[in-house]
Amino acid sequence: MLLRQRKSGLCSVNYDAVFEKAIDRLHAEGRYRVFIDILRNKGAYPNARCFAGHNGPKPITVWCSNDYLCMGQHPKVISAMEDALHDVGAGSGGTRNIGGNTHYHVELEAELADLHGKGSALLFTSGYVSNDATLSTLAKVLPGCIIYSDELNHASMIAGIRNAGCEKRVWRHNDLAHLEELLAADDPEAPKLIAFESVYSMDGDVAPIEAICDLADKYNALTYCDEVHAVGMYGTRGGGITERDGVADRVTIIEGTLGKAFGVMGGYIAADQKIVDVIRSYAPGFIFTTSLSPVLVAGVLAAVKHLKASSEERDAQQANAAMLKKLFADAGLPVMMSNTHIVPLMVGDPVKAKKISDTLLAEYGVYVQPINYPTVPRGTERLRFTPGPQHDETMMRELTDALVEIWERFELRVAQAA
Amino acid sequence: MLLRQRKSGLCSVNYDAVFEKAIDRLHAEGRYRVFIDILRNKGAYPNARCFAGHNGPKPITVWCSNDYLCMGQHPKVISAMEDALHDVGAGSGGTRNIGGNTHYHVELEAELADLHGKGSALLFTSGYVSNDATLSTLAKVLPGCIIYSDELNHASMIAGIRNAGCEKRVWRHNDLAHLEELLAADDPEAPKLIAFESVYSMDGDVAPIEAICDLADKYNALTYCDEVHAVGMYGTRGGGITERDGVADRVTIIEGTLGKAFGVMGGYIAADQKIVDVIRSYAPGFIFTTSLSPVLVAGVLAAVKHLKASSEERDAQQANAAMLKKLFADAGLPVMMSNTHIVPLMVGDPVKAKKISDTLLAEYGVYVQPINYPTVPRGTERLRFTPGPQHDETMMRELTDALVEIWERFELRVAQAA
Repeated sequence: MLLRQRKSGLCSVNYDAVFEKAIDRLHAEGRYRVFIDILRNKGAYPNARCFAGHNGPKPITVWCSNDYLCMGQHPKVISAMEDALHDVGAGSGGTRNIGGNTHYHVELEAELADLHGKGSALLFTSGYVSNDATLSTLAKVLPGCIIYSDELNHASMIAGIRNAGCEKRVWRHNDLAHLEELLAADDPEAPKLIAFESVYSMDGDVAPIEAICDLADKYNALTYCDEVHAVGMYGTRGGGITERDGVADRVTIIEGTLGKAFGVMGGYIAADQKIVDVIRSYAPGFIFTTSLSPVLVAGVLAAVKHLKASSEERDAQQANAAMLKKLFADAGLPVMMSNTHIVPLMVGDPVKAKKISDTLLAEYGVYVQPINYPTVPRGTERLRFTPGPQHDETMMRELTDALVEIWERFELRVAQAA
Repeated sequence: MLLRQRKSGLCSVNYDAVFEKAIDRLHAEGRYRVFIDILRNKGAYPNARCFAGHNGPKPITVWCSNDYLCMGQHPKVISAMEDALHDVGAGSGGTRNIGGNTHYHVELEAELADLHGKGSALLFTSGYVSNDATLSTLAKVLPGCIIYSDELNHASMIAGIRNAGCEKRVWRHNDLAHLEELLAADDPEAPKLIAFESVYSMDGDVAPIEAICDLADKYNALTYCDEVHAVGMYGTRGGGITERDGVADRVTIIEGTLGKAFGVMGGYIAADQKIVDVIRSYAPGFIFTTSLSPVLVAGVLAAVKHLKASSEERDAQQANAAMLKKLFADAGLPVMMSNTHIVPLMVGDPVKAKKISDTLLAEYGVYVQPINYPTVPRGTERLRFTPGPQHDETMMRELTDALVEIWERFELRVAQAA
């Protein structure tokens, strides 16, 4: 169907052509995204089925899931969700204020506040919304606020900061001297907020949180730490890097997700009771939206409780990530040596990255998505592997062999280029 | 715990005091929100349990849910969710592009595109995010775009329009002459988008969609219609007011929710394939977020399919809403005479609205949330009842009697004041 065109003869915008051009640009740059259609096999993860549109589903191994610890398949999580489904039904039926505040929500917020040693916590429908709603609202409540943002912060933090409409300073990634330079240059009387991530998900490096907090103290700034790629996975109870480094009490607001290591869906912040109450009361992105389904919340409750008590999944994930990095490095593949569970393999070109990914899927049943702009800067396109506790050594060796074959076949750059 | 205060002696912002003042303002205006902690009883809706923090849960009747047709409790929905939970697990594990595109998502998008007779559809984590992401992205893809926004549009549309950073004109609610005046005053060459809702959820009135589309044709504007309070409930297949009025093909983008009449959680748009592809490819709020849990998507699939074929729930809802409005009017209560399923009772004061709501809950086991600013304009605070197919005549008569008693006890304004 063509879009409606002008009828009056008065106007000349051709909407259809504008939209077409926008899509053509993506094709031309080799970064038009085609979603791979899959279903995971519960109980057999990382195995899944891929629907390529012909000959029925084909078995594959998933290497790029953010269900980092397989908690989305954990019997305790499944059973908690099944119980909630039969106890209260599918959805919450309303916003938190109008009928959508279930006992599960109240319990999970208490559990998350405890996880981070904070007075309070607040659930959002996603980590994206947590960041967007909290950052934009905080800056509005603090007139004249300046936000200092690490240059590699996630798109949702960038959205929140832009939507705040406040002054912003972008500091070079993890560069404390640059951060201090910017802090020192601004009015000492201005409210300030330093926003950063603990684990940067595409490179797998970690922020110097303690030193950032020292600067925050020195310049009377609040701190906001996105821990979405760390909660559940670091710290003895899964409280994230802030727990591991013993600095949770020094970070003003810790933000996390329920959709990665906790295996389900949703996001949250944990902070002082007063700050949480302000966000709860003023953030449109929290107020005007149907709350998380109680079925999801029940599942997350089980996941958080389990990971507070069990380090088995965390330990296995770290061991497997270390093994995969070593196998890649020994094979001469351009692995980026992260010090976390993220295993990125640098390609540096969107077309090649997609070609490698397509070949892995079609010929080896290996599913790893190419990562391209705007998720990473242009020229740093890559494959990003996330081995979990269930990826065994055989899978890793087969994967390494497949990559070596493909690297040779396409004459790709080897290790020294990474 | 007090927030960290200055240590260096250089600065003087007292964050704690700013946050405290923000909360004090809400208390002073009588609009500090206290969330009622409930659990619905599956299979016995509108019955639920209320946790008041002492003496265990207390049985209540829910009168303010947006699970309008009780689909969140429908056996087909529950069973589809249970099957998905056991087939693929709790969460999707990633963004749509990176591991989180399941076969359920693909199927539901096809189902929703068909529901609205559009080429394509796109899922979001919520209706809020659908509006915010789509409106803000559209305006960025169309340089120089002007958005014409009905003054009563939902907070999420307002957020999307503001985040677009484009020119905006606010037209008086449902006022076609004003809309045309604004359209005619602008450059005929500028791209234009008219954004409105079909059913306005707090007053329950309906937009003149056909006439808006006539103006859109005349001035070469795109149209964006938020149908969140209509999908599932109007039209012979539940396609909303655009289906009922036979104008779905004239609206460029139809936006809907999966968390109200469809009973679960999430949001979507349906439009021409090219427009959907643009939003899919450019909207950060779509790209950078974990996709809807496949468990939710499976439930919605069942709900949409059911409501395409069955009008029983829609008919019962309409009959019950009409009966409740008549009972209220006959009893002299200040009911606002909507022509939809929404039954608002005007109070006009936030403190009184909360007092009535508290009394209903404490003394009558009736749960209806007071609606205050910013959800409605100040001075129009109200109670908003949403009778569904399962609210029977006895419940409605008991509710009316309770309200009459409370209205007399507190000497509240009666019908003529509405």
